Amino acid sequence: MSKKDPDLMEKIVSLCKRRGFIYPSSEIYGGFSGFWDYGPLGVELRYNIKQHFWNKFVSGKSEIYPISTSIIMSPKVWGASGHVSTFSDPLDSGEKFNTMFKTSVGAGEEATLSYLRPETAQGMFVNFKNIIDSFHPELPFGMAQIGKAFRNEISPRDFLFRSREFEQMEIEYFVKESDWENTFEAWRKEMHEWIGEIGLSKQSVHELEVPTEDRAHYSRRTIDFEFDFPFGRKELYGLAYRTDFDLRNHSASSGIDLQYFDEESGERFTPHCIEPTFGVDRTVLAVLASAYTEDRLGGEPRTYLKLSKNIAPVRAAVFPLLKNKPELVSKAREVYTNLKKEASNIEFDDNGNIGKRYRRQDEIGTPFCITIDFDTLKDDTVTLRDRDSGKQERVKITDLKEAIS
Amino acid sequence: MSKKDPDLMEKIVSLCKRRGFIYPSSEIYGGFSGFWDYGPLGVELRYNIKQHFWNKFVSGKSEIYPISTSIIMSPKVWGASGHVSTFSDPLDSGEKFNTMFKTSVGAGEEATLSYLRPETAQGMFVNFKNIIDSFHPELPFGMAQIGKAFRNEISPRDFLFRSREFEQMEIEYFVKESDWENTFEAWRKEMHEWIGEIGLSKQSVHELEVPTEDRAHYSRRTIDFEFDFPFGRKELYGLAYRTDFDLRNHSASSGIDLQYFDEESGERFTPHCIEPTFGVDRTVLAVLASAYTEDRLGGEPRTYLKLSKNIAPVRAAVFPLLKNKPELVSKAREVYTNLKKEASNIEFDDNGNIGKRYRRQDEIGTPFCITIDFDTLKDDTVTLRDRDSGKQERVKITDLKEAIS
Repeated sequence: MSKKDPDLMEKIVSLCKRRGFIYPSSEIYGGFSGFWDYGPLGVELRYNIKQHFWNKFVSGKSEIYPISTSIIMSPKVWGASGHVSTFSDPLDSGEKFNTMFKTSVGAGEEATLSYLRPETAQGMFVNFKNIIDSFHPELPFGMAQIGKAFRNEISPRDFLFRSREFEQMEIEYFVKESDWENTFEAWRKEMHEWIGEIGLSKQSVHELEVPTEDRAHYSRRTIDFEFDFPFGRKELYGLAYRTDFDLRNHSASSGIDLQYFDEESGERFTPHCIEPTFGVDRTVLAVLASAYTEDRLGGEPRTYLKLSKNIAPVRAAVFPLLKNKPELVSKAREVYTNLKKEASNIEFDDNGNIGKRYRRQDEIGTPFCITIDFDTLKDDTVTLRDRDSGKQERVKITDLKEAIS
Repeated sequence: MSKKDPDLMEKIVSLCKRRGFIYPSSEIYGGFSGFWDYGPLGVELRYNIKQHFWNKFVSGKSEIYPISTSIIMSPKVWGASGHVSTFSDPLDSGEKFNTMFKTSVGAGEEATLSYLRPETAQGMFVNFKNIIDSFHPELPFGMAQIGKAFRNEISPRDFLFRSREFEQMEIEYFVKESDWENTFEAWRKEMHEWIGEIGLSKQSVHELEVPTEDRAHYSRRTIDFEFDFPFGRKELYGLAYRTDFDLRNHSASSGIDLQYFDEESGERFTPHCIEPTFGVDRTVLAVLASAYTEDRLGGEPRTYLKLSKNIAPVRAAVFPLLKNKPELVSKAREVYTNLKKEASNIEFDDNGNIGKRYRRQDEIGTPFCITIDFDTLKDDTVTLRDRDSGKQERVKITDLKEAIS
């Protein structure tokens, strides 16, 4: 299903602002290029995406160690990683411009020039030894981090796609060198699974085998997962085999041994690393672009977000059929309160007529609407409406939890 | 229960590093003063604290709108808020030093001097109109944000207490001016509830009514919630009545109307604001300092963290009595897998003998240890051990979920 609407991006940006997903940063002061704020629905959507990542790749895997490192680190980290010397884009004049944000840490003579991290990965490599010392993991094991990163893009553009402040979900997975190919393949498969689970269609995601001349110098293999954004096919995720480059580099620069001791074989060696990396904001954008749909329902045009149940900001909305009938409102409140005990993202809505409420929920991608009417008071059934088809069925209140999960 | 041990802080810092709660940032490069990294157990502890905040104050209150704004905002925000002119500490020489971190955004002639936010609050005030426009909330309503903030402290010290990068949980709660006193009291009560729920004792927290001359100029009342840290009684949380200062100020500076229109009365006015503010890292530190306990159990000295079940990084650990009995290991795996479906923070451990495993779990504050032994294979009961008393009881596997929740 291709999206050929030339106004699609504009429509998405507008919906995001109007309905409270994403606002331009500092908007009352005219905005600030490359920065965006997440409103209530955006916060929920982003939270659900991160939570799904966490459940699948962190809590769900006993060999993955989560970590959350500081955004400002010692400048020595960025010297060793090569970012100080090479992390730059050409300006119009051809001059090289380092895209790390700089800041000064400390006062007076103590002040040290440092940087906002341009990626979360290095925070993991420099903590490799801490994980080894605290947890004595056996290979293979991984580290995972979700957090903000910053790049002083010369031309921020395409909404969340190329912004100056963004969030990453990264994993550094350490293996014996001989295991790198199997591990790479295993992660490749899991990344495709993830893509399906958050509701992106397989047809909209394409693997790009990055050719040698385009790969970072430390990488011996990289696959970009590209997505058909409304503005073209662009990188969404990456999977890289980083060899033992980072650990070796940090070991050489810091003078600290970052080898792994294999008790079984008695060998001491530097593990190799496979890195699956996911942009949170690019995921949000891909998911929104994928979900944005215009159709006709009951003879009327409508706009709705076909978001996966796994990540929709509101899972279900509960309505009393009429606002001015206390018995309906109180029954609806009861159903709402009980459902909310199971899942926090349940909404109560009694504004306007039912038709308007459906359209409002469609537009923010709520998969289910539940209406309490006069029959409910007789037989404890409610109307359950499906977002995509608009179809309604009667469901027992006791079966609701199951029906929306 | 007072903590008089002069080495207490050192012991806490050491335990945090050894067991994987918190590491010094950039440690292999000699560290970086004022910055800390959270290891796997610290990530879980901090997550549980934030999640508890979210459930209690955001999901749990339909009138609170969460938001997540950028760390770098337009410098005009900080001009209007007064931070550019007044957010400073005196250097030794008496000279004023602005403690906002500065950075340059954009390249060449486009470059704009900007700042890393020193608080999350302003990100909410500048989005007040967006929330009004997207959600049309009725007063009272609030906004909430969890996120990082940065202050270039001249002398970072006391572990997580005075660091240069930290996380805040803040609420801006908007009311009619006439409601400020009631609302202030209601939040004061909820903050005390929170303090109990995360396991801090009432005796260790003290309200300080901040006198007029010490209050920020915009505040007409402020209470500091101080905690008895090992290094003294210091500010943990704050509750401030900020009047309508911030909205008025941003409205005057931006030229955008930030008033609220009350449909009932037909009045248009600037709401007043009550601000409960919580430091995440100070919470972590207070919780650790409170929980750190040395006692004797079974005639042996032990160190344990008496963490509340609500926030302990590991809720329960499951052990097979012996590692080399496949029938015990497989039964233990089964119990572990089933419990993990209900709560993600369940751990499996078969390293060393049972006594060592208990001590290891005690030291990270795991409330429950579950041992699968030969009786389990006969009657489907397990040993459930309580961290604080060390007492063990036999519990049916089917009752475990209930027993640890």
